[in-house]
Amino acid sequence: MKIHLINPNTTATMTQTAAAAATQVAAAGTQIIANQPADGPVSIEGYYDEAFAVPEMLQEIRKHNDCDGHIVACFDDTGVDAARCVANGPVIGICEAGCIAAGTIANRFSIVTTLSRSVPALHHLIQRYGAERRCASIRASDIPVLELEKQEQQAMQTIENECLAAINNDGAEAIVLGCAGMTHLASMLSDKFSLPVVDGVSAAVKQIEGLVSMNLTSSRVNGYRKPVVKKYNGKFAKYAVNDQGE
Amino acid sequence: MKIHLINPNTTATMTQTAAAAATQVAAAGTQIIANQPADGPVSIEGYYDEAFAVPEMLQEIRKHNDCDGHIVACFDDTGVDAARCVANGPVIGICEAGCIAAGTIANRFSIVTTLSRSVPALHHLIQRYGAERRCASIRASDIPVLELEKQEQQAMQTIENECLAAINNDGAEAIVLGCAGMTHLASMLSDKFSLPVVDGVSAAVKQIEGLVSMNLTSSRVNGYRKPVVKKYNGKFAKYAVNDQGE
Amino acid sequence: MKIHLINPNTTATMTQTAAAAATQVAAAGTQIIANQPADGPVSIEGYYDEAFAVPEMLQEIRKHNDCDGHIVACFDDTGVDAARCVANGPVIGICEAGCIAAGTIANRFSIVTTLSRSVPALHHLIQRYGAERRCASIRASDIPVLELEKQEQQAMQTIENECLAAINNDGAEAIVLGCAGMTHLASMLSDKFSLPVVDGVSAAVKQIEGLVSMNLTSSRVNGYRKPVVKKYNGKFAKYAVNDQGE
Amino acid sequence: MKIHLINPNTTATMTQTAAAAATQVAAAGTQIIANQPADGPVSIEGYYDEAFAVPEMLQEIRKHNDCDGHIVACFDDTGVDAARCVANGPVIGICEAGCIAAGTIANRFSIVTTLSRSVPALHHLIQRYGAERRCASIRASDIPVLELEKQEQQAMQTIENECLAAINNDGAEAIVLGCAGMTHLASMLSDKFSLPVVDGVSAAVKQIEGLVSMNLTSSRVNGYRKPVVKKYNGKFAKYAVNDQGE
Amino acid sequence: MKIHLINPNTTATMTQTAAAAATQVAAAGTQIIANQPADGPVSIEGYYDEAFAVPEMLQEIRKHNDCDGHIVACFDDTGVDAARCVANGPVIGICEAGCIAAGTIANRFSIVTTLSRSVPALHHLIQRYGAERRCASIRASDIPVLELEKQEQQAMQTIENECLAAINNDGAEAIVLGCAGMTHLASMLSDKFSLPVVDGVSAAVKQIEGLVSMNLTSSRVNGYRKPVVKKYNGKFAKYAVNDQGE
Amino acid sequence: MKIHLINPNTTATMTQTAAAAATQVAAAGTQIIANQPADGPVSIEGYYDEAFAVPEMLQEIRKHNDCDGHIVACFDDTGVDAARCVANGPVIGICEAGCIAAGTIANRFSIVTTLSRSVPALHHLIQRYGAERRCASIRASDIPVLELEKQEQQAMQTIENECLAAINNDGAEAIVLGCAGMTHLASMLSDKFSLPVVDGVSAAVKQIEGLVSMNLTSSRVNGYRKPVVKKYNGKFAKYAVNDQGE
Repeated sequence: MKIHLINPNTTATMTQTAAAAATQVAAAGTQIIANQPADGPVSIEGYYDEAFAVPEMLQEIRKHNDCDGHIVACFDDTGVDAARCVANGPVIGICEAGCIAAGTIANRFSIVTTLSRSVPALHHLIQRYGAERRCASIRASDIPVLELEKQEQQAMQTIENECLAAINNDGAEAIVLGCAGMTHLASMLSDKFSLPVVDGVSAAVKQIEGLVSMNLTSSRVNGYRKPVVKKYNGKFAKYAVNDQGE
Repeated sequence: MKIHLINPNTTATMTQTAAAAATQVAAAGTQIIANQPADGPVSIEGYYDEAFAVPEMLQEIRKHNDCDGHIVACFDDTGVDAARCVANGPVIGICEAGCIAAGTIANRFSIVTTLSRSVPALHHLIQRYGAERRCASIRASDIPVLELEKQEQQAMQTIENECLAAINNDGAEAIVLGCAGMTHLASMLSDKFSLPVVDGVSAAVKQIEGLVSMNLTSSRVNGYRKPVVKKYNGKFAKYAVNDQGE
Repeated sequence: MKIHLINPNTTATMTQTAAAAATQVAAAGTQIIANQPADGPVSIEGYYDEAFAVPEMLQEIRKHNDCDGHIVACFDDTGVDAARCVANGPVIGICEAGCIAAGTIANRFSIVTTLSRSVPALHHLIQRYGAERRCASIRASDIPVLELEKQEQQAMQTIENECLAAINNDGAEAIVLGCAGMTHLASMLSDKFSLPVVDGVSAAVKQIEGLVSMNLTSSRVNGYRKPVVKKYNGKFAKYAVNDQGE
Repeated sequence: MKIHLINPNTTATMTQTAAAAATQVAAAGTQIIANQPADGPVSIEGYYDEAFAVPEMLQEIRKHNDCDGHIVACFDDTGVDAARCVANGPVIGICEAGCIAAGTIANRFSIVTTLSRSVPALHHLIQRYGAERRCASIRASDIPVLELEKQEQQAMQTIENECLAAINNDGAEAIVLGCAGMTHLASMLSDKFSLPVVDGVSAAVKQIEGLVSMNLTSSRVNGYRKPVVKKYNGKFAKYAVNDQGE
Repeated sequence: MKIHLINPNTTATMTQTAAAAATQVAAAGTQIIANQPADGPVSIEGYYDEAFAVPEMLQEIRKHNDCDGHIVACFDDTGVDAARCVANGPVIGICEAGCIAAGTIANRFSIVTTLSRSVPALHHLIQRYGAERRCASIRASDIPVLELEKQEQQAMQTIENECLAAINNDGAEAIVLGCAGMTHLASMLSDKFSLPVVDGVSAAVKQIEGLVSMNLTSSRVNGYRKPVVKKYNGKFAKYAVNDQGE
Repeated sequence: MKIHLINPNTTATMTQTAAAAATQVAAAGTQIIANQPADGPVSIEGYYDEAFAVPEMLQEIRKHNDCDGHIVACFDDTGVDAARCVANGPVIGICEAGCIAAGTIANRFSIVTTLSRSVPALHHLIQRYGAERRCASIRASDIPVLELEKQEQQAMQTIENECLAAINNDGAEAIVLGCAGMTHLASMLSDKFSLPVVDGVSAAVKQIEGLVSMNLTSSRVNGYRKPVVKKYNGKFAKYAVNDQGE
């Protein structure tokens, strides 16, 4: 099985972090093919960046449409709905996958993410996924995405504080890490706080492996129907699908 | 007051239809500046098209940032969150505006839209806007967006049937027209069925006029903070904002 | 356009405060006609007062049925449903209007109101308007309504404290002022906290102007049908409508 | 124990029907004191009538404040919140009581009421009482309230049809009769359809008896605090409470 | 009327406490028959204990099927759905009954219970009963169930602290005691905090008395149909019902 | 990896059907160990049967606590919460697993199950899992569980009719089969209706494989803490856990 992991921002080191996490949990026989677009924002921080990460991310998915499934490795689940329309195999984002895993091992969980500006977008996702009652809180550490790679020490302390507050004040029984750049922290935090800490990238690998094993892919009834052939004008003409909706 | 109406698809005739509806309800002193991107899909039908309409739509909003506010004239409220981050003035989509107006004159309303494939996206919007209890149903006529301009007669009958079913079976006290290409039908349908029929474009004009009159624009706390300056790689570099977040 | 602003309590100075706010945002050509009943409570503080403010408020609306629309200038949206049945034009309360405006410029907002005893009634409104997820909190300053006019200084400090707590603790991106007697504080608080502060009276003017411009009024299907002619006994006979439901 | 049953409309025959139902289920030692206001609408059909039934209903409650508790015998639960503020004992409406009883003997129930125009008001109550998921549907027979007493035969058939539709199409396991004027139909319908049919008046008697036996009355913290003494102007001065909030 | 109160754990002293509370509020003519299973856990603390309390509890209900109704005297409402299928009369748990009573005398209430491990189970109940908006919080004192009988003094202080926090921080207007072993504290806490404190056992007695007076029992349509005769293998054969579903 | 599949009823042929489905999707290296209790009901049809399936099911889980995870192969997700407390590895029911899979490939899905009497229990699960908005409908074929094995032809037609109604009337984009005895129908129905048909048993295997690969198991904070050692009286003494909570 080949799983395509697309990091929707253009920072290759984040792709590598996510790919490493993905590879670690992949089943024997699963190959992780990870990449990122050449064009677009170096990190996705808020609604505006999200909009510009999607077009080239979708192109990468079309290019990798021979893969059995796709992971969108950004916690905003950027462009997942559009990806489901054009991908042949199933597609999942790491927020949805992380919340699914946490929801099967804990009555309530909290998300610890990077920036406050991303919290409203996560609230919308949580609501859409029906996880309002399971998600005890969404806490921002206010560490910019790309800083996660650098000043480990200070960032770690801030993240730990938010985890602690989630456990003590919000009733969290598990933590979901709210950024693809945090994947490497899961086991350390789990040991420290003696509760499950879920990395969305790992969770997404297992969801896609599962769907592919069951021969399940996005329904072509209504919402995720393949895009129809139509005119895309100007510089965006390259994004129009052909008459197989591909 | 100058209001920028952006039609996120590239079809100029749809812009004109929307602009006409907007002009008709605009207050004395309000100037409607309507346009559409040069690059992108000719119509937005489902999640995939939506993704490719947003980048150039946002560019148009930045170019028209001297306007007092902006209307996104597509019933999917395509890219409105991103637009709120980068626009100086307030921004609203025609779905949200239509639902607001209908919600103040009816206990329950139904949306009559174009394609079944768009219904799930509208369900997500309705949920997010907190209109689940007010929205009695979302009904699709399955007339493609651009057909609305052509075969009027047959399209009209189908749309009327859906309105009738909404009133008789779903308990709708008002109808919201679920496509910018339907604006011209509002008064005719209202007369025919003796109940309010809301056109989202008109409703959006009045919401923006209202917010501008009150000197209100998108909050810069958390979710709609101006985008930060950061590297946008490759062909998307032009979309990166400058150090005023503009 | 003539808009009737009815202050449902009998305190003329509160009517004047509200009328001043209304006039300030009214479009050129909009005339604000503000009054209050002669009979009823001097302020509305809780469910009991509400009940006795409604009958004469509805009479005032019937007397002003030549106006194009009506604003109920009390944050409990007292009697709005009944008013919609008898008014020819559209009717809105300042709570609903304030929440609508805040919801289009902020992901989450908080309401800062007067008395704790009014908070449960506001919870019911928020729920009914589908704003539970957008309304981060409702905070009471416990300043009686009529005190707002007097001891400005101390009242201001208390109100500011509640705004600050809403922003820092509850995730509010905007504030809605929860009393018609607070309208004059909006711009000062907005400057102080650098975020949008919404006055419901102003917001209501713009909603009514909008509905009137679109020729929209309360649906006569089901809930807001005109009242039927029927016997009203004793001293309340004067409230019975005639055979035009007027 | 003395329970005051207030019929908020002015039709004495409806009071008698309700009083008979109440007496039938009252415990030994419970005395039902039933009356109706002299001033107000002869029946409550929609939001407008509701507003004018409340003032004199509250006066009757104050006059009967020596009773141990009060029942508001109108399915709109007209003025119950205000009544709780001023009554010494507990107060319940027949909609809330009926839904409580049905919810403890059925997974889902339907309400069969009189007029379509009342359905939106019932939707609001159901939502407020947290019964959205338990209430499978609200069905209107479109028989005016006072007709219920007259043309039994035809009215019965219509009501039976709605019950049948609720059972077969909506998944109702029980029926709640949605009007005080339907109380006499409960046992007949229950026999006919072999499922529980709940009369709200009976249910309300048992709720009030229960609360009184437990020495429970409306909390004086926040929402149901006794009204404060304040000026009530003009003809409504008589409604102002004294310094005991009575 | 004979009401069967079943304490689903095997501790006779807890049965006695609950029976005393039940007897105190029972109507003249109501006989409380209280017992507990011989086989099963001495207290129910969490999901695991719950599973093993149910089988013998249901047997006791079948043995007492000549009673007019049944109370499940454990705040987890253990096995109530199954009991409704097999009992001839109505069945209620003390959590549902307590929340019903509190919901008719307060806009919002809090539950103060024993152990943190039980809180998620109560969250599920509250959600199922539609009380999410009325239940301001669920607070655990972390006093084991059987300790409630012993170290009164220290336990009392902890419980009082949680009540106080519920009132001051969570907006509770009433308290529901979240354990059958707390019934004796209700009046003391009510006096101390000057608000209603609801004991679920008392509330359950009054609900059952009410349903029985109205000749209402669990609907036999769909969910609470009598169990069908079928093979129960091995040691559990004794639990199979006979061909009357008894 | 060893996964324990427990069929909570005592019918070995149903275990075999479920085990076959499980084995088919299991990863290389995953061993499925399937069994059923010796004591208990031959099928689970409604709340009553559920109660008697749980005790011995939990015993089987304790006996197989060397397995890496557990699947409860009954669509009522019978006893899953209790199982999570006592199992060392993760536990999932086939309803939750089926809904998770369907929710990642379809905007809305319907459940087609066996008996009407089970529908309310499924409604409760769907609500608890936060799938109310994704689950378009729950449809019962009213074929008894054990009949599924026998009269294939007629049963199939009924099941197909319900699938068709779900697709055409309810907006389902995918179907979840609502009984462990239906697993063998998934691919046939999927081919027939050209949309994804999810078998919960298969889905559960993949969820458990995923959690085990990530080293995730039920949180021991709050709700799923290991049971405490305590006295279990009489014949149920064998169910009490030892001082490792095992």
